Amino acid sequence: MNHAPATAGRLLRDLHEVGRDRRRGGYTRFAYGPAERELREWFAAEAARRSMDTETDRNGILWAWIPGPGGSCEQAVVTGSHLDSVPGGGEFDGPLGVASAFAAVDLLNTRGLTPRRALAVVAFPEEEGGRFGQACLGSRLMTGAMDPGRALALRDADGIPLAEAMAGAGVDPRHVGRDDEAVARIGAFVELHVEQGRGLVDRGRPVAVGSSIIGHGLWRLTVTGQGNHAGATRMTDRRDPMVAAGAVVVAVRDVARTVRDARATVGRIEPTPGGTNVIASRVDVWLDIRHPDDAVVPMLVAAVTERARSLAAAEGCEVTLVEESYGGSVRLDRRLRDRVAAVLPDAPHLDAGAGHDAGVLAEVVPVSMLFTRNPTGISHAPQEQVEDADAQAGAAALADVLADLLSGPVPAAAVVSSPNSRPAQCAQPTDRRTDPGRSMDT
Amino acid sequence: MNHAPATAGRLLRDLHEVGRDRRRGGYTRFAYGPAERELREWFAAEAARRSMDTETDRNGILWAWIPGPGGSCEQAVVTGSHLDSVPGGGEFDGPLGVASAFAAVDLLNTRGLTPRRALAVVAFPEEEGGRFGQACLGSRLMTGAMDPGRALALRDADGIPLAEAMAGAGVDPRHVGRDDEAVARIGAFVELHVEQGRGLVDRGRPVAVGSSIIGHGLWRLTVTGQGNHAGATRMTDRRDPMVAAGAVVVAVRDVARTVRDARATVGRIEPTPGGTNVIASRVDVWLDIRHPDDAVVPMLVAAVTERARSLAAAEGCEVTLVEESYGGSVRLDRRLRDRVAAVLPDAPHLDAGAGHDAGVLAEVVPVSMLFTRNPTGISHAPQEQVEDADAQAGAAALADVLADLLSGPVPAAAVVSSPNSRPAQCAQPTDRRTDPGRSMDT
Repeated sequence: MNHAPATAGRLLRDLHEVGRDRRRGGYTRFAYGPAERELREWFAAEAARRSMDTETDRNGILWAWIPGPGGSCEQAVVTGSHLDSVPGGGEFDGPLGVASAFAAVDLLNTRGLTPRRALAVVAFPEEEGGRFGQACLGSRLMTGAMDPGRALALRDADGIPLAEAMAGAGVDPRHVGRDDEAVARIGAFVELHVEQGRGLVDRGRPVAVGSSIIGHGLWRLTVTGQGNHAGATRMTDRRDPMVAAGAVVVAVRDVARTVRDARATVGRIEPTPGGTNVIASRVDVWLDIRHPDDAVVPMLVAAVTERARSLAAAEGCEVTLVEESYGGSVRLDRRLRDRVAAVLPDAPHLDAGAGHDAGVLAEVVPVSMLFTRNPTGISHAPQEQVEDADAQAGAAALADVLADLLSGPVPAAAVVSSPNSRPAQCAQPTDRRTDPGRSMDT
Repeated sequence: MNHAPATAGRLLRDLHEVGRDRRRGGYTRFAYGPAERELREWFAAEAARRSMDTETDRNGILWAWIPGPGGSCEQAVVTGSHLDSVPGGGEFDGPLGVASAFAAVDLLNTRGLTPRRALAVVAFPEEEGGRFGQACLGSRLMTGAMDPGRALALRDADGIPLAEAMAGAGVDPRHVGRDDEAVARIGAFVELHVEQGRGLVDRGRPVAVGSSIIGHGLWRLTVTGQGNHAGATRMTDRRDPMVAAGAVVVAVRDVARTVRDARATVGRIEPTPGGTNVIASRVDVWLDIRHPDDAVVPMLVAAVTERARSLAAAEGCEVTLVEESYGGSVRLDRRLRDRVAAVLPDAPHLDAGAGHDAGVLAEVVPVSMLFTRNPTGISHAPQEQVEDADAQAGAAALADVLADLLSGPVPAAAVVSSPNSRPAQCAQPTDRRTDPGRSMDT
């Protein structure tokens, strides 16, 4: 090893000022924006420090490789998370998983493990959908769960299309899309993430194993009325979509409260034109609706829509609904979970209420998740927290799991296999290695 | 006259593409932004075409002068309106008054009137408050109704302070503030404006005389809760300010409906951080509240605030309220109105439900208003409309009123008088004349 081993906490301290949001509080690190680009450079530097070859693949996903015996990357053990954040989010959601992965690599190096297969650290872009509105965009593109043409046309709040943002970060948008070769390299994927609830706090434990990931859908509900002057228009002459939208926001919560385990949230609302002295002509309301049972989600959406239509009609307004994204609930791979449970016998098992790239990958490869304790239980907000000791406990647990997977058999063959022979080098032709001359030292 | 006389409709056609807003529909012409700057250049060009000296005063107000006998600008008759718009507003709110003023100058020139005093056409910046949130900002600064330090610190949605926006338009922010000399020149002010309701449509008349301007206040109500993850946070564990804010929007309307002639509107709402998968930590709601009786407005605000506190408390949230601006109702000058009514005996008299710079100036000089028919009755929206024939009927009525004021006595001395002698030239030292060499030809 040609560098001093680092803890996850130490690695995160280098990122403490990157993407701080003075207006909202917390951090805003949008995919392909300046802060996330700085984090990508950090990723490449940490990889280089560990003599790992870095690659940015066709979908903008970062990979850092330690090839297996003979330079093979077949059935690789892959770990990592994402670097982007929600607007005004916490410090750990995403980067903790990547920092823990590098810290785990250091622990494995210290232990002098002899791996039987390749190891890769990954960082997926636009996991949060904070910039382009599509959660898990990088992993969805890679697995083919999202159409590349539709993705590239997505625009951020400033009207910049994804294609332009990717090109600005050096990713050629012409090559975006399903990438069976990249998927075929993955023997197993383990994502460590800060816990986004109070499961570990309540149990007094630092690390948990994930058992499922809740389904997650995003709908845009548009209420249309008649824009007009706020002073000159009598109250009785109005068709004000803001009044209807306000009632809809309350109704969304009321509907979710009637269904056990349902979660429904309006976090974004945009009146058009949005002037203070103007009755809006249109209001867009984004509905985040989740339930562990996929069959319940459409019922929740239907109930909200019916309430919204009725509330809008009472104001002389109309409602339209568009699904922006949807991913069903995922039960994580049973055999892999049993392996992880055997390695971490003291760790409780938790359901994840949040969506993760691991949930998208679970459709095509064996996936496991670890969660690190968050003492506030708050996430997607500046109050999100991880103690250094817990961060390192998470990295150590991850190292234990990786060591087991690297030295024993992986639990199952990859679901997707490439018709082509796999490349001798792990990094693919679109490679942007930071230092291709270095050899691995594990 | 060295140019062909123009109708108001013809003048407006030159502005048809300026500041079109493809996203919101209609027009967005924010003070000191690119579109309004183009309109300011149009103002200067139209003034030059009529050999009027142009001046941008200390507060960014545009003036175009036809001096009185001997170059005097004492007891000048002033007419005009504003060029800025609300976001996604109509084509006529503001520019109609300025175009009608130039068209009226042409009509007066054609008639060969011999004026007894100076005539000026004005355009006030940031009448709508669309950019910096303060309606009638230019006229309030000129009359001293607004503190210049507070005004200069106002920021637009991109965080740009007014001081910077003014400087970018060539207005030195160090000289902003009460301008008694500018006010002292005004003998009477007549503002023509597109009607913002259905008063003239219902009466089948093209032009009305204003009798009062309704009071107008803007408050920012902030609901604070706990930001958190939209998926991982149980419905029962939430303190979601969006739910409270939604209920407040409905309550604002409900309160206004209980009080005759009250108007209360939420046209702008901003959750922080505003991510789709994030429970907001804070929501700002802007309340536009109006009533012709000034004593009723605080009662409306108190009722809304009480309801908001109770609705927020039910969600575990808190509420704060800040007054952003307030101007009481204004009865327009009685003697001037009688004069105008004598000139326009067929014109109905209407109360204005909207605020105007005329209402601010009415505190310090005699003011009258004219309204031109709007066949849709809709304003602050793309559907705002004025027929060419009505626009010219308005310009002709304005010309009649101006002719009367220019050739007879003005109804009263200006309320504010300057301790200094008035400048021999109408335009003040901060002058930016387009062609100082030209002489007037009326």
